[in-house]
Amino acid sequence: MTNTSPTAAVLLIGDEILSGRTQDVNLKQIADFLTPYGIPVKECRTVPDVEEEIVAGVNALRARYTYVFTTGGIGPTHDDITADSIGAAFGVEVDEHPEIIEILAERYKSVGREFNPASRRMARVPKGAVLVKNTSTGAPGFRMDNVFILAGVPSIAQAMLQALGPQLETGAVVHSITVRGIGAVESDIASGLTALAEEMGDVSLGSYPWFKTMDDRGVNLVARSTDEKLLDTVSERMIGLFAKAGIDAELVSGAG
Amino acid sequence: MTNTSPTAAVLLIGDEILSGRTQDVNLKQIADFLTPYGIPVKECRTVPDVEEEIVAGVNALRARYTYVFTTGGIGPTHDDITADSIGAAFGVEVDEHPEIIEILAERYKSVGREFNPASRRMARVPKGAVLVKNTSTGAPGFRMDNVFILAGVPSIAQAMLQALGPQLETGAVVHSITVRGIGAVESDIASGLTALAEEMGDVSLGSYPWFKTMDDRGVNLVARSTDEKLLDTVSERMIGLFAKAGIDAELVSGAG
Repeated sequence: MTNTSPTAAVLLIGDEILSGRTQDVNLKQIADFLTPYGIPVKECRTVPDVEEEIVAGVNALRARYTYVFTTGGIGPTHDDITADSIGAAFGVEVDEHPEIIEILAERYKSVGREFNPASRRMARVPKGAVLVKNTSTGAPGFRMDNVFILAGVPSIAQAMLQALGPQLETGAVVHSITVRGIGAVESDIASGLTALAEEMGDVSLGSYPWFKTMDDRGVNLVARSTDEKLLDTVSERMIGLFAKAGIDAELVSGAG
Repeated sequence: MTNTSPTAAVLLIGDEILSGRTQDVNLKQIADFLTPYGIPVKECRTVPDVEEEIVAGVNALRARYTYVFTTGGIGPTHDDITADSIGAAFGVEVDEHPEIIEILAERYKSVGREFNPASRRMARVPKGAVLVKNTSTGAPGFRMDNVFILAGVPSIAQAMLQALGPQLETGAVVHSITVRGIGAVESDIASGLTALAEEMGDVSLGSYPWFKTMDDRGVNLVARSTDEKLLDTVSERMIGLFAKAGIDAELVSGAG
């Protein structure tokens, strides 16, 4: 990868994630979405519903990565302060967007609900925001420069990702393979893996043990590279590392 | 809460979380563990297996919060660089700890595995580290000042949390209740909720919509406070807000 290859960061916004009430799934969802675009997620921060924390997070990340994806805090209630915080981060006013008013008015009409002042709160975006379509529930996300502001509800965030995908600059796609050694512990293969990692400079190798009980444990070795052919070689070498320790291993997910 | 009430941050370490390969569950697990101690998690960062990123993350967080909990990167393989990174963050040497060598030697003997040089890597901790017992698989975590270094495997991280719990300074426990309005959208209750939030200054109110289909949607209102009695009042008021919009609502989880 060169220095010009695109990168991404994720900013998860919401007290409910930090309190343990809600299990976040948006980081994984965004990372999975970006993988085929060749855009690796390099950092994630989770911040509470506090404007200065959101501002600090978004400003730190947007300066450093090609793209930032935020989730959460764009609904109509008092704790939805993402639009105002993004406005503050960019130093611009936040106002009702006529196109969103139109979308919402139509949407509320179609589902037979009143389009009340609280709903209008969802139409407030920073000046210069470009809308991100929401085919799920109507109220759009938006883009400010290199920052995409998405909903926190995972199915809505996914709809917004689908809508914004074509705007993204793509990089070299990183492929990965996983070789699983059932019953292994990491120290069985650690020294051989270190040697392999040094030999295969362009391949990133990771070792991920799992442990449920003494009988349900093992190690997944993961290799990641933009070069699929190299991964075939690495996969065989990994199976060999396990074999040397007397452990049966198999390729559980292939390149691609 | 006063300024002296303890706070926490979480630093999740690992390429596998950022790549989307692994769904993190440690943030939620740590937050759930800390709730009865009255220690709120205020921030979480997820960083890759890169020493300078780990150092920057741990130094930013340990200066700001009472406690920092890291997960991941303390195994025996080449990508386990947390101990060295913590040493670098604190500016101290990293060395084999005799007590860990003893624990590991015994452990490997008991399970009939060779205690090889790779395994010894797990005995390397920064000077001054205090061990955190691992009743699950033996190899301990450790504490450096206000930073607890835990395993990435969730069941092992949980065992370490149990072991370190008695060391924690406790704060005022935050209780929470959830009132669920099935079929509601947030704009149904947004204006009433804003008024309620203003009135109940000491109670933090959150609104969390879910949306699966047009027929499976609704809003969870969550109130959090150290004052359980106040939560009873808030719960009734929330049910009233839904009722005013013609929506049946119920308390789905009570205070405590």
